[in-house]
Amino acid sequence: MYIHLDFESDTPIYKQLMHQIIAGIAKQELKPGESLPSVRTMAADIGINLHTVNKTYHQLKEKGFILIHRQKGVVINPDGTPKADEIYMLQLKNALYPLVAESVCRGVKEEEFRQLCISLFQEFTQRKDRSK
Amino acid sequence: MYIHLDFESDTPIYKQLMHQIIAGIAKQELKPGESLPSVRTMAADIGINLHTVNKTYHQLKEKGFILIHRQKGVVINPDGTPKADEIYMLQLKNALYPLVAESVCRGVKEEEFRQLCISLFQEFTQRKDRSK
Repeated sequence: MYIHLDFESDTPIYKQLMHQIIAGIAKQELKPGESLPSVRTMAADIGINLHTVNKTYHQLKEKGFILIHRQKGVVINPDGTPKADEIYMLQLKNALYPLVAESVCRGVKEEEFRQLCISLFQEFTQRKDRSK
Repeated sequence: MYIHLDFESDTPIYKQLMHQIIAGIAKQELKPGESLPSVRTMAADIGINLHTVNKTYHQLKEKGFILIHRQKGVVINPDGTPKADEIYMLQLKNALYPLVAESVCRGVKEEEFRQLCISLFQEFTQRKDRSK
């Protein structure tokens, strides 16, 4: 899996890494039970601090996307991905809120916004279909 | 306008403040030409650091939402809100990408995601209609 980080972005690196691992899971490039590099290897591979990778892995573990074994190392949760519970749906709503607010200010129509979401959903779903 | 900050959130305070001011503009609670409190007053009112408010105001200025006058102080851009150009649409897509990725992982359907967006759009649009 190819990791691309934008050091100019105002999104923290640990979050960018987390987003890309989650995107890899969504695209089924990373499958349940698959190993991820150790904190040390990942940090060396992509040229970032150990603590940054550690933060990413711990947040992914908290969300239920990965398991961190003392012996087996870091693996994508073999029991599959966590589900969308009420807490997640509220977090999602809170994350969408400022995006919708700024889009309304800038005159983006609901339909345009929707099309953008659909195209992103398709990006993930089509890859899923291809991988079957 | 009532500002609510969540000090437990992993969204930086300067960004939370920025989001709330943009939401205020979207809801037309803050109108073109309207004054915002000075950096010093805003910081004192909501109990945060001067530099945090400064960062919010400078980002809002860069985006084109406010003007910072030496004499008149801080005002909502009297020429209206900035438009959705290609750069904005790309930023929006990049911001939606991890939200869609995690939603796909968690089994949120495209339709559910869409309904959430529609309800948020309505939250802003209905307020706009009421204020006419």
